[in-house]
Amino acid sequence: MEGKTLRPVVTVRLYTDRKCFGPGIAALLRRVERHRSLRAAAMDMGMAYSKAWSILREAEQGLGFKLLHTTTGGKNGGGAALTAEGARMLEAYERFEAELKAEAETLFTEHFSEFIKDIQE
Amino acid sequence: MEGKTLRPVVTVRLYTDRKCFGPGIAALLRRVERHRSLRAAAMDMGMAYSKAWSILREAEQGLGFKLLHTTTGGKNGGGAALTAEGARMLEAYERFEAELKAEAETLFTEHFSEFIKDIQE
Repeated sequence: MEGKTLRPVVTVRLYTDRKCFGPGIAALLRRVERHRSLRAAAMDMGMAYSKAWSILREAEQGLGFKLLHTTTGGKNGGGAALTAEGARMLEAYERFEAELKAEAETLFTEHFSEFIKDIQE
Repeated sequence: MEGKTLRPVVTVRLYTDRKCFGPGIAALLRRVERHRSLRAAAMDMGMAYSKAWSILREAEQGLGFKLLHTTTGGKNGGGAALTAEGARMLEAYERFEAELKAEAETLFTEHFSEFIKDIQE
């Protein structure tokens, strides 16, 4: 058998009455922060603008607060920026996700030592 | 705003060179253990038998060992049982998943206290 390494992949999503936050919206918001535009953020991810809008709308409706505020007009047809609550939400999600993934690595080594060894042999 | 509770949903998948283990195959194996049949296990999950077979094959190829052994013949056209390695893999996955989810609840409360409160108000 070729050397294959077994590894965990952990996905964290947040729900209220619906899915409202996860890796997709987090990546999108991080890019909005950089590009100051939802359209540019979507493009940077290879995501359709309409998809970005629908993810954002679902997230905001699920959370019950705005993640972005948009400014209309200007030479780029308006920009986008994270609301204060949106920025704190993104920070909280990223810290939560990073700490949980670190914990997953520890727990994985504990529970799967037999299989990590078997598969690599 | 109606009272909405924000909660985390954590998904754990295991990869080698491909996805090879996750909630779907775990649920399927647990039902094979109960029903002694892959077909009955799939039916119990509302999953097509062909889908169950393909999940199982992908998992076994990814892991490099058999999860089930089948017995041909008999009045039900053969049965299925977990291999010793398959049973240990399932146990390890379920313990890993349960411990990580418990840790997720703790970390979630730490990082999202502001939002849990906001959304419930």
